[in-house]
Amino acid sequence: MLITSLDNQKIKKYLKLKIKKFRDEEKLFLIEGEHLVEEALKSDLLVDLLVLDGNIKDYHFPITYVGSKVMKKLSNMDSVPSVIGVCKFLEEKEITGNRVLLLDDIQDPGNLGTIIRSSLAFSVFDIILNLNSVDLYNDKVIRSSQGMIFQMNILRRDLGKVITDLKKKDYVILGTDVFKGIDVKDISPEKFALIMGNEGSGVKAELKKMCDKNLYIKMNSKVESLNVGVATSILLYELNR
Amino acid sequence: MLITSLDNQKIKKYLKLKIKKFRDEEKLFLIEGEHLVEEALKSDLLVDLLVLDGNIKDYHFPITYVGSKVMKKLSNMDSVPSVIGVCKFLEEKEITGNRVLLLDDIQDPGNLGTIIRSSLAFSVFDIILNLNSVDLYNDKVIRSSQGMIFQMNILRRDLGKVITDLKKKDYVILGTDVFKGIDVKDISPEKFALIMGNEGSGVKAELKKMCDKNLYIKMNSKVESLNVGVATSILLYELNR
Repeated sequence: MLITSLDNQKIKKYLKLKIKKFRDEEKLFLIEGEHLVEEALKSDLLVDLLVLDGNIKDYHFPITYVGSKVMKKLSNMDSVPSVIGVCKFLEEKEITGNRVLLLDDIQDPGNLGTIIRSSLAFSVFDIILNLNSVDLYNDKVIRSSQGMIFQMNILRRDLGKVITDLKKKDYVILGTDVFKGIDVKDISPEKFALIMGNEGSGVKAELKKMCDKNLYIKMNSKVESLNVGVATSILLYELNR
Repeated sequence: MLITSLDNQKIKKYLKLKIKKFRDEEKLFLIEGEHLVEEALKSDLLVDLLVLDGNIKDYHFPITYVGSKVMKKLSNMDSVPSVIGVCKFLEEKEITGNRVLLLDDIQDPGNLGTIIRSSLAFSVFDIILNLNSVDLYNDKVIRSSQGMIFQMNILRRDLGKVITDLKKKDYVILGTDVFKGIDVKDISPEKFALIMGNEGSGVKAELKKMCDKNLYIKMNSKVESLNVGVATSILLYELNR
């Protein structure tokens, strides 16, 4: 089948997925390009695959061909992608791992995507976003995660309740403190939840109070802080050694 | 003095600085907001300071007041900043440090800014961009550097020539190799130049060949690579220990 009209019912439904409100209603989101589609194919979340007319790559998945006008309209990029996937929202699973990452009000989609990619790299498979964090299904988040979201368990919860619950299960709650922290190199808890905060204002005071230990990354005193994606990555890197 | 007209000669000149071509001609660039201006004030690169009419903060620097229409037009942000600084391009100094960072075709301004911030944090003060890298004076670069550019020596050069020159001066040229590299934890050269490459394609082959040693960051095999800002930061963090 080849769809070339923007008035096609299916295309009209998919176009709405560019807006968060409709994604949340349908529990569906779009991904662009071969790399992300290949990552999605490793999960069972892909529900439809739109391929640019004339493209002959075999995805081993049922395909709908679309014209370049349709593809361009569905895309968030400047160049027309060869493929767009429609995916179901991630299934929210129970936390089973010994290492958890909590994110309090991360607002930049690039930062969230980068953090997801680094988390998987350093073997943290459970991430909990607070209710006010940037939308996980924002196209920039997915793009900068390089499709690693499909291998993660990512929940959205009230972090105060989550921390209370994790404490009961013997997770050490780790915060950060540039002035009075422990060098992350000198600690290696077996079971931990690391909490990282907003780009400008950091972790909220009421959550900071719940931390059992605070870490810091040794650095030149000329610099006040690192980018939150970088800081999270270095901490998880060290905690993984 | 208060300028409220967009036809003012000075404002017309400054508005052009939003475009790379004119920045390069004038060797001037704009910075926005109190934090960046305070960082610029620590250097001697600030040449003019435009403050929003009604703002009473004392910068200990000669001020030109401007109306909100002018400020909005000069700004790249959604909200009108309270202050905009006009700065001279960084002075290009000779490389004197024992640690140098070479960047080959970094294209994302956020990545370059983040790398500059991390470099200073891990005591690398000399960065050399290849001729094709993203513009250093792009507003997103400066913003994500958090103004740390003012404390750095950043050159733009042909990297092949730079590497040849650094080799003569006994710098160990460090590249990266996910498959055959040395764990960065196991190496601590006193005098090195680390080369990092483009977000998609990495370091160009002809430069890769010039590397004396290749490093890798230990990570989960589910992930092919890290964001280049994160990878650079972790490598410099380890090489600084």
